[in-house]
Amino acid sequence: MATEVIKSKIRDVPDFPREGIIFKDITTVLRDPKAFSHAVDMLADHFKKHKIDYIAGIEARGFIFGSALAYKMGKGFIPIRKPGKLPAKTERVSYELEYGNDSLEIHTDAVEPGKNVLIVDDLLATGGTAEAAIKLVKKIGGVIVGIAFVVELEFLKGREKLPDDCKITRLISF
Amino acid sequence: MATEVIKSKIRDVPDFPREGIIFKDITTVLRDPKAFSHAVDMLADHFKKHKIDYIAGIEARGFIFGSALAYKMGKGFIPIRKPGKLPAKTERVSYELEYGNDSLEIHTDAVEPGKNVLIVDDLLATGGTAEAAIKLVKKIGGVIVGIAFVVELEFLKGREKLPDDCKITRLISF
Repeated sequence: MATEVIKSKIRDVPDFPREGIIFKDITTVLRDPKAFSHAVDMLADHFKKHKIDYIAGIEARGFIFGSALAYKMGKGFIPIRKPGKLPAKTERVSYELEYGNDSLEIHTDAVEPGKNVLIVDDLLATGGTAEAAIKLVKKIGGVIVGIAFVVELEFLKGREKLPDDCKITRLISF
Repeated sequence: MATEVIKSKIRDVPDFPREGIIFKDITTVLRDPKAFSHAVDMLADHFKKHKIDYIAGIEARGFIFGSALAYKMGKGFIPIRKPGKLPAKTERVSYELEYGNDSLEIHTDAVEPGKNVLIVDDLLATGGTAEAAIKLVKKIGGVIVGIAFVVELEFLKGREKLPDDCKITRLISF
């Protein structure tokens, strides 16, 4: 019931980013104050009993949900970014895309070793980005509490790419 | 006094993005729960008496402060993005950089005409990005309530580029 409010606000955009793909547009969730705050509140409620030190958001839509969640839960926010965007010393992990590959970076000193990190992104699709984000947090010594998504595209089987011991949470699935 | 807590957490990174520039790194504000929530709370407090319908954040660091502020104030969040990122019909505005130029986009239907929009970004530097964001919101019929930054680099005189009738707010200046 509760997630239906959010789901009903997701807009299907045909042929984006290319022909034949129906893109799940969450900007129509964000612009609706009730749906947006409901998504953040549901994630906060889900993790309220977990020991969390930091919330890491994956650029760029993961920043939107991740930072609101960090604010709501009173935690620090860590940006995981595209290459060349973070100014200080970084660790980098590359991952494969359907065509070519991409990388993500995190500041080497973003998290003190042993601290608990919850990773947030808007969408779990093929899982490559999420897998890279998990590797990055571990690389700098963070402990993964879990990884949370607003939407999971189940038919793409992204969760099969994530470590067995990683707790995966998602509000909505298609 | 209150802004000093935030200012003290900003890290100077020399020679980023290129030699001779001292970059004001706000990731060290974000990772500190007190400084981060304090920045969001100060912005919310500043605008609490304004009639605001939407908060628009500029990609990517503007998403971090903008979405937390939208959540805090119970408003809808509108992403203003780099070209090609928004899936539905967009308006686009180009702006000049020191070398070459760049563009920003907004969904054409992001804001109903006449609605009040507060724009948020982390940093006011030369003002080109902020100017483009203001033009975009006006282009789709939004009314600019103001534009808010966490940091203003006063010596770059970015505010001179912004419209005279645009209320500019910033928490910290250098």
